[in-house]
Amino acid sequence: MSNPLRIAIAGLGNVGSGTVKLLTQNSDLLRKRSGRPLKITSISARDKNKDRGFSTDGMIWFNDPVAMAKEADADVLVELIGGEEGIAKEVCEQALKSGKHVVTANKALLAVNGESLVSLAENNKVVLNYEAAVAGGIPIVKAIREGLAGNSIKRIYGILNGTCNYILTEMRTQRRAFDEVLLEAQKLGYAEAEPSMDVDGIDAAQKLSLLSSLAFGTKINFSAVYTEGIRRISLLDIDYAEELGFRIKLLGSAQRTAEGIEQRVYPCMVDQSFPIAHVEGAYNAVVGIGDFVGNTMFQGLGAGAGPTASAVVADLIDISHDRRAPTLGVSYNLLENIPDIEIGKHVGPYYVRLMVADRPGVIADITAAFRDEKVSIESMIQRSRSTTEAVPVILNTHDCKEYEMQRALSNISTLDSVIEEPTMIRIETLS
Amino acid sequence: MSNPLRIAIAGLGNVGSGTVKLLTQNSDLLRKRSGRPLKITSISARDKNKDRGFSTDGMIWFNDPVAMAKEADADVLVELIGGEEGIAKEVCEQALKSGKHVVTANKALLAVNGESLVSLAENNKVVLNYEAAVAGGIPIVKAIREGLAGNSIKRIYGILNGTCNYILTEMRTQRRAFDEVLLEAQKLGYAEAEPSMDVDGIDAAQKLSLLSSLAFGTKINFSAVYTEGIRRISLLDIDYAEELGFRIKLLGSAQRTAEGIEQRVYPCMVDQSFPIAHVEGAYNAVVGIGDFVGNTMFQGLGAGAGPTASAVVADLIDISHDRRAPTLGVSYNLLENIPDIEIGKHVGPYYVRLMVADRPGVIADITAAFRDEKVSIESMIQRSRSTTEAVPVILNTHDCKEYEMQRALSNISTLDSVIEEPTMIRIETLS
Repeated sequence: MSNPLRIAIAGLGNVGSGTVKLLTQNSDLLRKRSGRPLKITSISARDKNKDRGFSTDGMIWFNDPVAMAKEADADVLVELIGGEEGIAKEVCEQALKSGKHVVTANKALLAVNGESLVSLAENNKVVLNYEAAVAGGIPIVKAIREGLAGNSIKRIYGILNGTCNYILTEMRTQRRAFDEVLLEAQKLGYAEAEPSMDVDGIDAAQKLSLLSSLAFGTKINFSAVYTEGIRRISLLDIDYAEELGFRIKLLGSAQRTAEGIEQRVYPCMVDQSFPIAHVEGAYNAVVGIGDFVGNTMFQGLGAGAGPTASAVVADLIDISHDRRAPTLGVSYNLLENIPDIEIGKHVGPYYVRLMVADRPGVIADITAAFRDEKVSIESMIQRSRSTTEAVPVILNTHDCKEYEMQRALSNISTLDSVIEEPTMIRIETLS
Repeated sequence: MSNPLRIAIAGLGNVGSGTVKLLTQNSDLLRKRSGRPLKITSISARDKNKDRGFSTDGMIWFNDPVAMAKEADADVLVELIGGEEGIAKEVCEQALKSGKHVVTANKALLAVNGESLVSLAENNKVVLNYEAAVAGGIPIVKAIREGLAGNSIKRIYGILNGTCNYILTEMRTQRRAFDEVLLEAQKLGYAEAEPSMDVDGIDAAQKLSLLSSLAFGTKINFSAVYTEGIRRISLLDIDYAEELGFRIKLLGSAQRTAEGIEQRVYPCMVDQSFPIAHVEGAYNAVVGIGDFVGNTMFQGLGAGAGPTASAVVADLIDISHDRRAPTLGVSYNLLENIPDIEIGKHVGPYYVRLMVADRPGVIADITAAFRDEKVSIESMIQRSRSTTEAVPVILNTHDCKEYEMQRALSNISTLDSVIEEPTMIRIETLS
């Protein structure tokens, strides 16, 4: 095969431009590794006249990316427009229907509309690759789908959002509050002006739904992911976490049990003895646990033009060699429908911080409320202060059920001596 | 494709039996992921009558694995015999010549005879897969060859020997000497009766030579790997490392520079702020640094029946789907011959421990010896003791050249007041 792989790119923002740069800068290397040239034949973006820092000589410009998906002289369409519906979806559908392979970095699209696209790709006997959609530059889709394919996967979890991990790391190391760090991250371009997708855990939940499907051979079930973000994490809790030997991370975790599949994204306390506790800053990491391989961890930058372009081009090289794998690990018709397990059934230890008035009987009231819900306390930190301000009481519990914990906290929050809404952070049991 | 992939397995030791167990236990899952059954048709091992805990019904027994490689009714031969020459080599050669794909876990064979086998596979248009040969269960060959294929790799390094990492971890956490921990590791089966392959760094060097070839597209150059093991690492140095913010790890590192390729295996001091410093026990980890992806790290169990079988079966699933990649990342005829850089040209900071008599002028003599070789000292720890015993003097240097350091140490070792041979451990500069 020495005829070029012909590539059409829809979307020339940060990632799109990074992809063009990679394909240009490393073209000799790519030709050796792909066995043939990777050639951009067509491009489409919103603004034709914007200077993106690269030459578009030899590339045909399309104003309409959907028309490009249909008509371009290309083997593969690379979708880097973004968004769960609308133009990105149309572009992918049109490309697949036109017999073109699709490479996309669009986690939102796949989390919401993945199944129809997977089915469409399979019916049209073309490839739908999405390495860049999960954990940026980490080749985690390939690792789970191919590298660990011999294993029954028990659990997959990870740090799936670099913005949140950056914010949590900055809070801890710079001793600054969430709002302050977020503002700076926005100035530096690490966080979006509208940060909700990141800090509320939605982006991580989209990625988790794809990993979960891949790992367990189940249909994508994004709407079943229980999702909490990091807005409520305070510096005080970060400090207590350190003192107790934990580190607070926003984890996405999917686990298969006898009852079904748990898919959860929330900030939690991770024991510092686990390697994932040491994944800091903008890094992502994914841990896959298999019945034969044991624990594996994959770590790298989760976003940015370079890492994302690296993943996009890896997908292109696979296509160039005609290396094919079932999009979600098994054929579409073999994907299982497995019930999700609601968060109320979560079982594990908890960290609770209560801000209380320092007066007699407070601890008795609190511990009684936990006892009434069968929540057993493992340890407590209470330091008296000389002031009349609220003082923190920190409790770690043994394993208990989420709904019991929630009821206990609900009762505790009604106590007069409890001054703020209780803070609860799950302590994640890893293995 | 619903016809089975027919597999012949040569060697039924720990890994061979683990592979049979995986193929049996996960057969339904494998059929879904492979699109067809994976079927063991033939086996060969030293002792036919040994009870290995699995049924050999439906498998044809061969006393001679070379005959099996030639005659078996199989699409793939799995070589799990081991050894860099002899029967393992003959089996692989015969299988490739007979048009069978080969999957092997044999790092020694590939490090020493890899090139001729790669060429043979290519000429016979069959696949030679070796995921299990490097870092056990970690799908690192696939990650470098495919997942990071868009990148020009600048450096690849890692913890490539689980036995050494286990010993170093035990020494640190249990505060026990090397000999004692090695003896226990041998009793527990974590180390061989003849431990030299592991503790002298040879096994790690074999793996490094494969990773280096893959990462840089160069011919395998095992004999050029500078190799030191961990026998000389003392508890004292482990303690000082901790105090200085380092951790001692046996690292294999390959780096491409303007002058050529550095390939090195030695124990070194790693800053505790790097994730690889926290990879403990029997775990392996590999860091790949690419021009677009940045730093990525892959971690998992580096040995054992389960993890190794996981890697072998991943290779089989690739073959089952006819997913092919050039064995060393690019075609055999494109592999470059790049000069190796001798260890004397290494540049970096060093840790030096000297055991000295506590008398006037000692430090002046030592610092003069370093000055004479232009070695600049960054920090020094010297604690006086009340006894007349030798006292340790710990020095960290700024970047200097290895041959200057060696000359300085050689001069220092002749000083009367220096009681033991100096201990030198390189401080590894990571990024």
